[in-house]
Amino acid sequence: MKKIEHIGIAVKNLEKSNQLFASLFGEPHYKIEEVASEGVKTSFFKSGPNKIELLEATKPESPIAKFIEKKGEGIHHIAFAVDDIKSEIKRLQKEGFTVLNKIPKKGADNKLVAFLHPKTTNGVLIELCQEIE
Amino acid sequence: MKKIEHIGIAVKNLEKSNQLFASLFGEPHYKIEEVASEGVKTSFFKSGPNKIELLEATKPESPIAKFIEKKGEGIHHIAFAVDDIKSEIKRLQKEGFTVLNKIPKKGADNKLVAFLHPKTTNGVLIELCQEIE
Repeated sequence: MKKIEHIGIAVKNLEKSNQLFASLFGEPHYKIEEVASEGVKTSFFKSGPNKIELLEATKPESPIAKFIEKKGEGIHHIAFAVDDIKSEIKRLQKEGFTVLNKIPKKGADNKLVAFLHPKTTNGVLIELCQEIE
Repeated sequence: MKKIEHIGIAVKNLEKSNQLFASLFGEPHYKIEEVASEGVKTSFFKSGPNKIELLEATKPESPIAKFIEKKGEGIHHIAFAVDDIKSEIKRLQKEGFTVLNKIPKKGADNKLVAFLHPKTTNGVLIELCQEIE
Protein backbone atom coordinates (compact mmCIF):
# COMPACT_ATOMS: atom_id res chain seq x y z
CA MET A 1 0.00 0.00 0.00
CA LYS A 2 1.89 3.00 -1.33
CA LYS A 3 -0.09 5.80 0.32
CA ILE A 4 -3.56 6.95 1.28
CA GLU A 5 -4.91 7.69 -2.20
CA HIS A 6 -8.04 9.37 -0.86
CA ILE A 7 -10.60 9.49 1.90
CA GLY A 8 -14.24 9.20 0.87
CA ILE A 9 -16.75 11.35 2.76
CA ALA A 10 -20.51 10.80 2.44
CA VAL A 11 -22.43 14.08 2.13
CA LYS A 12 -26.10 14.94 1.69
CA ASN A 13 -25.64 17.95 -0.54
CA LEU A 14 -22.56 18.02 -2.78
CA GLU A 15 -22.90 21.67 -3.69
CA LYS A 16 -23.01 22.82 -0.05
CA SER A 17 -20.20 20.49 0.96
CA ASN A 18 -18.04 21.65 -1.95
CA GLN A 19 -18.25 25.16 -0.52
CA LEU A 20 -17.49 23.92 2.98
CA PHE A 21 -14.41 21.93 1.93
CA ALA A 22 -13.22 24.78 -0.30
CA SER A 23 -13.21 26.98 2.84
CA LEU A 24 -11.40 24.25 4.75
CA PHE A 25 -8.64 23.70 2.19
CA GLY A 26 -8.45 27.28 0.96
CA GLU A 27 -9.06 26.08 -2.62
CA PRO A 28 -12.00 24.62 -4.54
CA HIS A 29 -12.56 21.05 -5.82
CA TYR A 30 -10.73 20.33 -9.07
CA LYS A 31 -13.12 17.73 -10.50
CA ILE A 32 -16.72 16.49 -10.47
CA GLU A 33 -17.47 12.97 -11.64
CA GLU A 34 -20.62 10.86 -11.67
CA VAL A 35 -20.34 7.08 -11.30
CA ALA A 36 -23.77 6.00 -12.50
CA SER A 37 -23.19 2.30 -11.73
CA GLU A 38 -22.67 3.18 -8.04
CA GLY A 39 -25.39 5.82 -7.87
CA VAL A 40 -22.97 8.55 -6.76
CA LYS A 41 -21.81 11.97 -7.80
CA THR A 42 -18.33 12.79 -6.52
CA SER A 43 -16.05 15.79 -6.21
CA PHE A 44 -12.31 15.78 -5.56
CA PHE A 45 -10.03 18.03 -3.50
CA LYS A 46 -6.24 17.84 -3.26
CA SER A 47 -4.18 17.84 -0.09
CA GLY A 48 -0.57 17.39 -1.18
CA PRO A 49 -0.10 13.74 -2.27
CA ASN A 50 -3.62 12.84 -1.08
CA LYS A 51 -7.20 13.51 -2.17
CA ILE A 52 -10.55 13.96 -0.49
CA GLU A 53 -13.53 12.54 -2.39
CA LEU A 54 -16.98 13.83 -1.47
CA LEU A 55 -19.81 11.42 -2.32
CA GLU A 56 -23.46 12.34 -2.82
CA ALA A 57 -26.09 9.69 -3.60
CA THR A 58 -27.92 10.10 -6.92
CA LYS A 59 -30.59 7.48 -6.13
CA PRO A 60 -32.22 6.13 -2.94
CA GLU A 61 -30.69 2.64 -3.31
CA SER A 62 -27.15 4.05 -3.59
CA PRO A 63 -24.76 2.69 -0.92
CA ILE A 64 -24.10 6.31 0.07
CA ALA A 65 -27.81 6.98 0.69
CA LYS A 66 -27.97 3.88 2.90
CA PHE A 67 -24.80 4.85 4.76
CA ILE A 68 -26.13 8.36 5.54
CA GLU A 69 -29.49 6.95 6.61
CA LYS A 70 -27.76 4.61 9.08
CA LYS A 71 -24.80 6.66 10.30
CA GLY A 72 -25.27 10.23 9.10
CA GLU A 73 -22.79 12.25 7.05
CA GLY A 74 -19.13 11.52 7.63
CA ILE A 75 -16.12 9.43 6.62
CA HIS A 76 -17.22 6.55 4.41
CA HIS A 77 -13.98 4.83 3.38
CA ILE A 78 -10.19 5.01 3.13
CA ALA A 79 -8.58 4.18 -0.20
CA PHE A 80 -5.00 2.98 -0.46
CA ALA A 81 -3.04 3.17 -3.71
CA VAL A 82 -1.53 -0.13 -4.83
CA ASP A 83 0.67 -1.00 -7.80
CA ASP A 84 -0.93 -4.35 -8.61
CA ILE A 85 -4.49 -4.68 -7.34
CA LYS A 86 -4.89 -8.32 -8.43
CA SER A 87 -1.89 -9.52 -6.44
CA GLU A 88 -2.96 -7.40 -3.43
CA ILE A 89 -6.43 -8.99 -3.54
CA LYS A 90 -4.84 -12.45 -3.51
CA ARG A 91 -2.45 -11.55 -0.69
CA LEU A 92 -5.23 -10.08 1.47
CA GLN A 93 -7.56 -13.04 0.89
CA LYS A 94 -4.76 -15.34 2.10
CA GLU A 95 -4.40 -13.13 5.20
CA GLY A 96 -8.08 -13.72 5.99
CA PHE A 97 -9.63 -10.43 4.84
CA THR A 98 -13.00 -10.53 3.07
CA VAL A 99 -12.54 -8.92 -0.33
CA LEU A 100 -15.89 -7.72 -1.70
CA ASN A 101 -14.70 -7.48 -5.31
CA LYS A 102 -12.63 -10.50 -6.25
CA ILE A 103 -12.44 -9.01 -9.72
CA PRO A 104 -11.60 -5.31 -9.43
CA LYS A 105 -14.16 -2.92 -10.90
CA LYS A 106 -13.94 0.47 -12.57
CA GLY A 107 -14.26 3.26 -9.99
CA ALA A 108 -14.12 7.06 -10.13
CA ASP A 109 -10.95 8.96 -11.10
CA ASN A 110 -9.68 6.41 -13.65
CA LYS A 111 -9.07 3.64 -11.12
CA LEU A 112 -9.56 -0.09 -10.78
CA VAL A 113 -10.94 -0.62 -7.28
CA ALA A 114 -11.82 -3.36 -4.80
CA PHE A 115 -13.25 -3.07 -1.28
CA LEU A 116 -12.53 -5.02 1.90
CA HIS A 117 -15.49 -5.82 4.14
CA PRO A 118 -15.38 -3.67 7.34
CA LYS A 119 -16.16 -6.70 9.52
CA THR A 120 -12.61 -7.94 8.88
CA THR A 121 -10.93 -4.53 9.18
CA ASN A 122 -11.98 -3.09 12.55
CA GLY A 123 -15.09 -1.45 11.17
CA VAL A 124 -13.19 0.46 8.48
CA LEU A 125 -14.33 0.21 4.85
CA ILE A 126 -11.05 -0.03 2.93
CA GLU A 127 -10.67 0.46 -0.82
CA LEU A 128 -7.69 -0.65 -2.84
CA CYS A 129 -7.13 1.32 -6.00
CA GLN A 130 -4.83 1.07 -8.95
CA GLU A 131 -4.47 3.73 -11.62
CA ILE A 132 -5.66 2.55 -15.05
CA GLU A 133 -2.89 3.20 -17.58
CA MET B 1 -3.07 21.72 4.62
CA LYS B 2 0.00 20.00 3.23
CA LYS B 3 -1.21 16.41 3.28
CA ILE B 4 -3.17 13.84 5.28
CA GLU B 5 -0.76 13.36 8.17
CA HIS B 6 -2.66 10.40 9.57
CA ILE B 7 -6.04 8.75 10.00
CA GLY B 8 -7.04 7.85 13.55
CA ILE B 9 -8.94 4.57 14.02
CA ALA B 10 -10.66 3.71 17.31
CA VAL B 11 -10.09 0.09 18.36
CA LYS B 12 -11.15 -1.99 21.34
CA ASN B 13 -8.01 -4.08 21.63
CA LEU B 14 -4.75 -2.52 20.44
CA GLU B 15 -2.80 -5.76 20.49
CA LYS B 16 -5.30 -7.61 18.28
CA SER B 17 -5.67 -4.64 15.93
CA ASN B 18 -1.89 -4.27 15.64
CA GLN B 19 -1.80 -7.81 14.25
CA LEU B 20 -4.69 -7.12 11.91
CA PHE B 21 -3.16 -3.94 10.48
CA ALA B 22 0.26 -5.61 10.21
CA SER B 23 -1.41 -8.24 7.98
CA LEU B 24 -3.11 -5.49 6.00
CA PHE B 25 0.03 -3.42 5.39
CA GLY B 26 2.46 -6.31 5.20
CA GLU B 27 4.57 -4.74 7.96
CA PRO B 28 4.15 -4.13 11.70
CA HIS B 29 3.55 -0.88 13.60
CA TYR B 30 6.73 1.14 14.15
CA LYS B 31 5.77 2.88 17.39
CA ILE B 32 3.55 2.60 20.49
CA GLU B 33 2.80 5.76 22.48
CA GLU B 34 0.53 6.47 25.44
CA VAL B 35 -1.05 9.93 25.77
CA ALA B 36 -2.12 9.84 29.42
CA SER B 37 -3.87 13.25 29.28
CA GLU B 38 -6.22 11.90 26.56
CA GLY B 39 -6.66 8.45 28.11
CA VAL B 40 -5.36 6.67 24.99
CA LYS B 41 -2.69 4.24 23.93
CA THR B 42 -1.75 4.57 20.28
CA SER B 43 0.22 2.65 17.67
CA PHE B 44 1.47 3.93 14.33
CA PHE B 45 1.76 2.35 10.90
CA LYS B 46 3.29 3.93 7.78
CA SER B 47 1.74 4.05 4.34
CA GLY B 48 4.14 6.06 2.18
CA PRO B 49 3.85 9.74 3.16
CA ASN B 50 0.90 8.98 5.48
CA LYS B 51 0.32 7.23 8.80
CA ILE B 52 -2.43 5.23 10.41
CA GLU B 53 -2.87 5.76 14.15
CA LEU B 54 -4.76 3.11 16.10
CA LEU B 55 -6.31 4.39 19.34
CA GLU B 56 -7.29 2.28 22.34
CA ALA B 57 -8.92 3.83 25.42
CA THR B 58 -7.00 3.43 28.68
CA LYS B 59 -9.87 4.63 30.88
CA PRO B 60 -13.68 4.59 30.64
CA GLU B 61 -13.98 8.40 30.37
CA SER B 62 -11.56 8.53 27.42
CA PRO B 63 -13.06 10.12 24.27
CA ILE B 64 -12.17 6.88 22.44
CA ALA B 65 -14.16 4.75 24.91
CA LYS B 66 -17.16 7.04 24.41
CA PHE B 67 -16.77 6.97 20.63
CA ILE B 68 -16.71 3.15 20.52
CA GLU B 69 -19.69 2.93 22.88
CA LYS B 70 -21.69 5.20 20.57
CA LYS B 71 -20.49 4.21 17.09
CA GLY B 72 -18.41 1.05 17.42
CA GLU B 73 -14.86 0.59 16.20
CA GLY B 74 -13.86 2.54 13.11
CA ILE B 75 -12.42 5.75 11.71
CA HIS B 76 -12.28 8.38 14.44
CA HIS B 77 -10.57 11.38 12.81
CA ILE B 78 -8.51 12.69 9.88
CA ALA B 79 -5.42 14.74 10.67
CA PHE B 80 -3.97 17.23 8.22
CA ALA B 81 -0.38 18.46 8.47
CA VAL B 82 -0.03 22.24 8.60
CA ASP B 83 3.05 24.47 8.72
CA ASP B 84 1.66 27.05 11.12
CA ILE B 85 -1.15 25.74 13.30
CA LYS B 86 -1.85 29.09 14.99
CA SER B 87 -2.47 30.90 11.71
CA GLU B 88 -4.57 27.97 10.41
CA ILE B 89 -6.72 28.12 13.56
CA LYS B 90 -7.30 31.84 12.99
CA ARG B 91 -8.07 31.35 9.30
CA LEU B 92 -10.56 28.53 9.97
CA GLN B 93 -12.32 30.45 12.74
CA LYS B 94 -12.82 33.34 10.30
CA GLU B 95 -14.26 30.83 7.80
CA GLY B 96 -16.87 29.82 10.40
CA PHE B 97 -15.44 26.50 11.62
CA THR B 98 -15.68 25.68 15.34
CA VAL B 99 -12.14 25.09 16.58
CA LEU B 100 -12.20 23.03 19.78
CA ASN B 101 -8.67 24.00 20.84
CA LYS B 102 -8.09 27.69 20.35
CA ILE B 103 -4.65 27.14 21.86
CA PRO B 104 -3.11 24.04 20.27
CA LYS B 105 -2.24 21.23 22.67
CA LYS B 106 0.49 18.58 22.76
CA GLY B 107 -0.67 15.41 20.99
CA ALA B 108 0.95 12.07 20.18
CA ASP B 109 3.93 11.76 17.82
CA ASN B 110 5.59 15.06 18.79
CA LYS B 111 2.81 17.28 17.41
CA LEU B 112 0.91 20.39 18.35
CA VAL B 113 -2.72 19.63 17.59
CA ALA B 114 -6.16 21.27 17.41
CA PHE B 115 -9.52 19.74 16.48
CA LEU B 116 -12.45 21.13 14.49
CA HIS B 117 -15.93 20.26 15.72
CA PRO B 118 -17.61 17.71 13.38
CA LYS B 119 -20.85 19.71 13.38
CA THR B 120 -19.13 22.32 11.18
CA THR B 121 -17.28 19.80 8.97
CA ASN B 122 -19.94 17.41 7.59
CA GLY B 123 -19.68 15.04 10.53
CA VAL B 124 -15.91 14.58 10.16
CA LEU B 125 -13.66 15.13 13.18
CA ILE B 126 -10.67 16.98 11.72
CA GLU B 127 -7.33 17.43 13.46
CA LEU B 128 -4.73 19.98 12.45
CA CYS B 129 -1.20 19.04 13.43
CA GLN B 130 2.13 20.77 13.31
CA GLU B 131 5.44 19.03 14.02
CA ILE B 132 7.15 20.37 17.17
CA GLU B 133 10.72 21.34 16.28
